[in-house]
Amino acid sequence: MRVRHKPWAKEKIEQHPQYIVANPEEYKGKWHEVFNNDQPLHIEVGTGKGQFITEMARTNPTINYIGIELYDSVIITALERLIEADLPNLRLLNVNAVDLSKYFAKNDVNQVYLNFSDPWPKYRHRKRRLTYKDFLKLYEDIMVDGGEIHFKTDNQGLFEHSLISFSEYGLLLKYISLDLHKSEYEGNIMTEYEEKFSEKGSRIYRCEVKYQN
Amino acid sequence: MRVRHKPWAKEKIEQHPQYIVANPEEYKGKWHEVFNNDQPLHIEVGTGKGQFITEMARTNPTINYIGIELYDSVIITALERLIEADLPNLRLLNVNAVDLSKYFAKNDVNQVYLNFSDPWPKYRHRKRRLTYKDFLKLYEDIMVDGGEIHFKTDNQGLFEHSLISFSEYGLLLKYISLDLHKSEYEGNIMTEYEEKFSEKGSRIYRCEVKYQN
Repeated sequence: MRVRHKPWAKEKIEQHPQYIVANPEEYKGKWHEVFNNDQPLHIEVGTGKGQFITEMARTNPTINYIGIELYDSVIITALERLIEADLPNLRLLNVNAVDLSKYFAKNDVNQVYLNFSDPWPKYRHRKRRLTYKDFLKLYEDIMVDGGEIHFKTDNQGLFEHSLISFSEYGLLLKYISLDLHKSEYEGNIMTEYEEKFSEKGSRIYRCEVKYQN
Repeated sequence: MRVRHKPWAKEKIEQHPQYIVANPEEYKGKWHEVFNNDQPLHIEVGTGKGQFITEMARTNPTINYIGIELYDSVIITALERLIEADLPNLRLLNVNAVDLSKYFAKNDVNQVYLNFSDPWPKYRHRKRRLTYKDFLKLYEDIMVDGGEIHFKTDNQGLFEHSLISFSEYGLLLKYISLDLHKSEYEGNIMTEYEEKFSEKGSRIYRCEVKYQN
């Protein structure tokens, strides 16, 4: 996604610590204090403008959601969406995914969503792909045993690399669709990006994989 | 593929025991006697009219090949091709894949090819798919440790089912292409079916999986 510089973004983020958690490291191992309940927690890594996670939170009130996005100028749109929706089961984190274990302890998270992650097509950039083995280890370290990753993308190369990475890591493939919008899968919630690209006729690939702890 | 009844096929098959091995159970555990060498053995399960396996054998003279096909009226075309090509490293078997372990012992086979297998799309027929777990067990029982299955198909549903079946069985995904003819994969040898369907613009899916004994 194109990232525009928005100098006012940082200030606006700081003004809304109830939505974009200001000191997430304080909640490591105790996110239930933030949500005031013991519901399962699903996180989206690379939440972008927040359409997916907001709709997920609205549709599934018995699950807590955290959207994680590094870029100020992108998460600001997710923040505006959340201010309007005012959902008690959704928070945002303006942090880098490589630091996940600073903010989450083992068993904090039940499920990870990866949607239309940056494909980093060049081999020399492969370690930056959010499905690279180092990231799979990060997710494992903060999830419950048997936790799942739900992944979708329109990028064929990223999907191919990711399926191999999942297999090499020992993850179990539970579900796969090589053309999501023509499949029988129900209840798909689209990201902004997905809406745009599927209108152009691009295939969407989707899979669910499970840790076999 | 459409199977036509050819009453003369059986007789012709019996006339060429040097190509279509007449008593394959006699060679269980000693296929090297048939080929008079100790080269690795690759088999194709469902070899159809034999274009793939014949070209593979021609291209790779240091590997032995066996094409397995149940239908008389189909294998007859493979036989005609083989009579013309007269390749010392290729044989055919006119047997049912469910009986593989009658003809091959553990370690007899180094690699299995599955090309454009019947998709059996209905759930109640899933056990007939050549990538169903019972078949994966059959291949394991006749292959060397770390043996591989190389699989291609134009059928999206079969490919999806198969990837899940491979993962559930614990096979390692080594290679995948979700659009083989637009990929960088070199040296692809096409089947008759593949030529026809890729001309029509159908995608070809391909993967390589490895047993982790």
